[in-house]
Amino acid sequence: ESLAKVIDGKAVAKQIREEIAAEILRMKDAIGVVPGLAVILVGDRKDSATYVRNKKKACDSVGINSYEVHLPEESTEQEVLDSISRFNDDPSVHGILVQLPLPLHMNEVKILNSVAIEKDVDGFHPLNIGRLAMRGREPLFVPCTPKGCIELLHRYGIEIRGKKAVVIGRSNIVGMPAALLLQREDATVTIVHSRTMNPEDITRQADIIISATGKANMVRGSWIKHGAVVIDVGINPVEDAKLPRGYRLVGDVCYEEAMEVASAVTPVPGGVGPMTIAMLLSNTLTSAKRAHGFR
Amino acid sequence: ESLAKVIDGKAVAKQIREEIAAEILRMKDAIGVVPGLAVILVGDRKDSATYVRNKKKACDSVGINSYEVHLPEESTEQEVLDSISRFNDDPSVHGILVQLPLPLHMNEVKILNSVAIEKDVDGFHPLNIGRLAMRGREPLFVPCTPKGCIELLHRYGIEIRGKKAVVIGRSNIVGMPAALLLQREDATVTIVHSRTMNPEDITRQADIIISATGKANMVRGSWIKHGAVVIDVGINPVEDAKLPRGYRLVGDVCYEEAMEVASAVTPVPGGVGPMTIAMLLSNTLTSAKRAHGFR
Ligand SMILES: NC(=O)C1=CN([C@@H]2O[C@H](COP(=O)(O)OP(=O)(O)OC[C@H]3O[C@@H](n4cnc5c(N)ncnc54)[C@H](OP(=O)(O)O)[C@@H]3O)[C@@H](O)[C@H]2O)C=CC1
Ligand SMILES: NC(=O)C1=CN([C@@H]2O[C@H](COP(=O)(O)OP(=O)(O)OC[C@H]3O[C@@H](n4cnc5c(N)ncnc54)[C@H](OP(=O)(O)O)[C@@H]3O)[C@@H](O)[C@H]2O)C=CC1
Repeated sequence: ESLAKVIDGKAVAKQIREEIAAEILRMKDAIGVVPGLAVILVGDRKDSATYVRNKKKACDSVGINSYEVHLPEESTEQEVLDSISRFNDDPSVHGILVQLPLPLHMNEVKILNSVAIEKDVDGFHPLNIGRLAMRGREPLFVPCTPKGCIELLHRYGIEIRGKKAVVIGRSNIVGMPAALLLQREDATVTIVHSRTMNPEDITRQADIIISATGKANMVRGSWIKHGAVVIDVGINPVEDAKLPRGYRLVGDVCYEEAMEVASAVTPVPGGVGPMTIAMLLSNTLTSAKRAHGFR
Repeated sequence: ESLAKVIDGKAVAKQIREEIAAEILRMKDAIGVVPGLAVILVGDRKDSATYVRNKKKACDSVGINSYEVHLPEESTEQEVLDSISRFNDDPSVHGILVQLPLPLHMNEVKILNSVAIEKDVDGFHPLNIGRLAMRGREPLFVPCTPKGCIELLHRYGIEIRGKKAVVIGRSNIVGMPAALLLQREDATVTIVHSRTMNPEDITRQADIIISATGKANMVRGSWIKHGAVVIDVGINPVEDAKLPRGYRLVGDVCYEEAMEVASAVTPVPGGVGPMTIAMLLSNTLTSAKRAHGFR
C-alpha cells in the first residue's frame, strides 16, 4: 500500500509569499510604488476579527501596506458605502476587501457591487465571474481560494488538461469558480452538489477531486479512485473533548482513508487555507502592477 | 423497440410566439407600448442577411417593431459604435442585436460591449453570464439558444432536477450557458469538449444530452443511454448531391440511431433552431416590460 503524497499548502504558500515579497521590492525600487490592501470590518464577530488580523499580518510579511476600517455593528449601510467609496478613490489602495458576513440589516450584494472592479481583489464581482466563464475573456482577478487550489496542482506538476475533474460544491466563492478554472485548463469537469444522486459513483471517476461542501469527512476513501488527486477546501469544526478548546478542524474529506487510495492529498489545516491568503496577496500585487503599468 | 418521441421545436416555438403576441397586445392595450428590436448588419454576407431577414419576419409575426441598420463592409468601427449608441438612447428600442460575424477589421468584443446591458437581448454580456453562473443573482437576459433548449425540456415535462446532464461543447453562446442553466435547475452537469477523453463513455451516463459542437453526426447511438433525452443544437451542412443546392442540414447527433435508444430527440431542422428565434422575441418582450415596469 503506497501512502499518498501530502500536498503541503503551507510550504507552497510560504514560497509564493517570498516570490511576492521579491516582486514588491523590485516594484518599489523601480517606480516607488508599494501595493496597498484595505479591509473593511463591520461589527464584533470574533472569527471575522481573527481573519482580518491574519490578512494584516500576511500583508506585513510581504511588504503590502494594509489599511483597516472597523465600523460598529450598528453602522448604516451608507457608512459602509462611504468607506468603500473613499478607498475606491484612494490611489494608494489597490485592493479592497469587505469582510463577510455583514450585519443582517445591510444589503450585501449592493455593498459588494460598490467596490471598484479594478480593486475587487476577491474576484467576486459578476463581471469578473462572467469573464472567467467565457472563452477569450480574461477576468481582472481570480477568486483566491479556487486560484489557490489550481496553483497547488500547478506547483506539484499535476496535469489538468484532458483529466476528469469533479468539484463537490458550487458556491459562488469556491466551487463554481473552481470548476470554471479547471474547465479553462481543459479538464472535463462535473459539478456535484446537494441535489446530486449517487455522488460517490460520480466522484469515483475523477482524476482530480476538489471538495468544498463544509460537510466534515463526507468524502470517504470509497469515493476516491486509486491514484486520484484530492484537494480538500473544507474547514469544519468537529467536537474533540481532548482539546482545551473542545473542537478540532477537519476537511470535507476523510483524510486517513484518502491517504490510502489517492496519489496526493491536501491536509486540513495546512492545505488550501494558507494558499487562499497567498492568492489574496498575489491579486493585490497584480492590481498594483496593473494600476501603474508595471511588469 | 420503442421509437423515441420527436421533440417538435417548430410547434413549441409557434405556441410561444402566440403567447408572446398575446402579451404584446395586452401591453399595447394597457400602456400603449410596443416592443422594438434593432438589428445591425455590417457587410454583405448572404447567410447573415438571411438571418436578419428571418428575425425581422419573426418580429412582424408577433407585433414587435423591428429596426434595421445595414452598414457597408468597409464601414469604420466608429460608425458601428455610433449606430449602437443611437439605439442605446432610443426609448422605442428594447433590444439590440449585432449580427455576427463582423468584418475582420472591427473589434468584436468592443462593439458587443457597447450595447447597453438593459438592451442586450442576446444575453452575451459578461455581466449577464456572471449573474447566470452565480447563485442568488439573476441575469437580465438568458442567451437565446440555451434558453430554448431548457424551454423545450420544460414544455415536454422533462424533469431536470437531480438528473445527470452532459453538455457537449462549451462555446460562449451555446454550450457554456446551457451548462449553467442546467446547473441552476439542479442537474448534475458535465461539460464535454474537444480535449475530453472518451467522450462517448461520459455521454452514455447522461439522462439529458445537449450537443453543440458543429460536428455532423458525431454523437452516435452508442453514446446514448437507453431512455435519455437528446437536445441537438448543431446545424451542419453535409454534401447531398440529390438536392438541388448540393447539401442538407444535419445535427451533431446521428438522428436515426438516437431515435432507437433515446426517449426523446430534437430533429434538425425543426428542433432547437425555431426556439432560438422565439426566445429572442421573448427576451425583447421581457426587456420592454422591464423598461416600463409592466407585469
Ligand atoms: N480553505 C479556505 O481558505 C476556505 C475554506 N472554505 C471552506 O470550504 C467549505 C465550503 O465553503 P463554501 O463554498 O463557502 O460553502 P457553501 O455552504 O456556500 O456551499 C457548499 C456547497 O456544498 C454543497 N453541498 C452541501 N452538502 C452537500 C452534500 N451532502 N453533497 C454534495 N454537495 C453538498 C452545496 O450544494 P447546494 O448548492 O446544492 O446547496 C453547496 O454548493 C467550508 O468548509 C468552508 O469553511 C471556504 C472558503 C475558503
Ligand atoms: N439551433 C440554433 O439556433 C443554433 C445552432 N448552432 C449550431 O450549434 C453548433 C455549435 O455552435 P457553437 O457553439 O457556436 O460552436 P463553436 O465552434 O463555438 O463551439 C463548438 C464546441 O464544440 C466543441 N467540440 C468541437 N469538436 C468536438 C469534439 N470532437 N468532441 C467534443 N467537443 C467538441 C468545442 O470544444 P473546444 O472548446 O475544446 O474547442 C467547442 O467548445 C453549430 O453546428 C452551430 O451551427 C449555434 C447557435 C445557434
